[in-house]
Amino acid sequence: MNIEPVAVFHSPVSGKFGVPRQSGLAESLKGEVELLPPFNREEALRGLEGFDYIWLVWEFSLNEKMDESQLTVRPPRLGGNTRVGVFASRSPFRPNRLGLSSVRIDGIDAGRGVIRVLGADLADGTPIYDIKPYVPYADSHPDARGGFTDSNAWKPLKVDFREMVCGDQLTPSELEALAEILSQDPRPQYQDDPQREYGLLFAGHNVRFKVADNVLTVISIDPLNQCK
Amino acid sequence: MNIEPVAVFHSPVSGKFGVPRQSGLAESLKGEVELLPPFNREEALRGLEGFDYIWLVWEFSLNEKMDESQLTVRPPRLGGNTRVGVFASRSPFRPNRLGLSSVRIDGIDAGRGVIRVLGADLADGTPIYDIKPYVPYADSHPDARGGFTDSNAWKPLKVDFREMVCGDQLTPSELEALAEILSQDPRPQYQDDPQREYGLLFAGHNVRFKVADNVLTVISIDPLNQCK
Repeated sequence: MNIEPVAVFHSPVSGKFGVPRQSGLAESLKGEVELLPPFNREEALRGLEGFDYIWLVWEFSLNEKMDESQLTVRPPRLGGNTRVGVFASRSPFRPNRLGLSSVRIDGIDAGRGVIRVLGADLADGTPIYDIKPYVPYADSHPDARGGFTDSNAWKPLKVDFREMVCGDQLTPSELEALAEILSQDPRPQYQDDPQREYGLLFAGHNVRFKVADNVLTVISIDPLNQCK
Repeated sequence: MNIEPVAVFHSPVSGKFGVPRQSGLAESLKGEVELLPPFNREEALRGLEGFDYIWLVWEFSLNEKMDESQLTVRPPRLGGNTRVGVFASRSPFRPNRLGLSSVRIDGIDAGRGVIRVLGADLADGTPIYDIKPYVPYADSHPDARGGFTDSNAWKPLKVDFREMVCGDQLTPSELEALAEILSQDPRPQYQDDPQREYGLLFAGHNVRFKVADNVLTVISIDPLNQCK
């Protein structure tokens, strides 16, 4: 089946490094769903104001297509060493590369065909193939067992901004979202080198950090062109 | 983007007439997700036994592709007369024809590559493009507002099997699922003619019924070849 994007996602997180590993983990992180023509008309969103969440069906566009002989993946939640079936995981390495996220509606600008959202785990530029309202009576199962995700919750890192350099260029709400992202440990899995410096791109800034003893220390936050 | 089915759905409900309008509405209705090659191997489902629900991303294969100039739909919940945006509705008439359903796991037969499920709103033969575990911490929002679905719940019909003819050919659990389907009023929307006879195909039987004064009366349940 051939499918075409109906929208594109805008996020301060560029590149896959730093994208939250699940929706809702960085709940202050702002993003925008921008409808593409011919869907970017006011009536396409009529009635959405009565809902708190939407579903996005999207493409893991930054990940290569899986090798279909690989039917198991190693979730970061399990430390990166235990294999589970691809259909028992939300891993981006999966057939058809389809992502699924419930995101909170922060506001609707129907005239521009834009839905402002919070907490999305989509990188900037991600193509979106469907948008559906979140219907609690069918979609919410608060008592459902969550397999390996139940007993292996993330232990958030403590985030230390002490040595920040140009962070005053970020707004307070951007800094809050950045802290949420960093607390979720955006390092590639299987890595634990306290000396190693990591970087991610956020809101047009290069953010450098290290992690040691469950504390993430921000070394610098520099605008991509130059530090003032 | 081109996507290929990873599985196919098996349901006693053939044809789109009688398919529940949302997952969970007919909670006794049994179905099977059958993985297709090369995904039908035991390891693809490893770890799924710890989850209670899965997400299915599937194709509304019985519905024609929407006319893209039609950005609004008329949900049955609103009586079929009020228009809402396609992205504010779970209507099958939508761009890319992608369906999304959370269904309860009833059992896993990993050796055959089969997941037995309950309450699905997929018709028999529906192609499935992804299977993901339901992760409550990210997917469940029990207090979310559900727009027009909050205040317009289905009022189930009373189902009267009195005049049933060959219904003894269905098992008790099939009859229970059939009653759930019928109570949700499977008539095409916008129709309310107490004299009119309707039919649907269920578990190899032709089920005929009428609806008057919020009571659905089953007229006959005949095997598709012949009534014994």
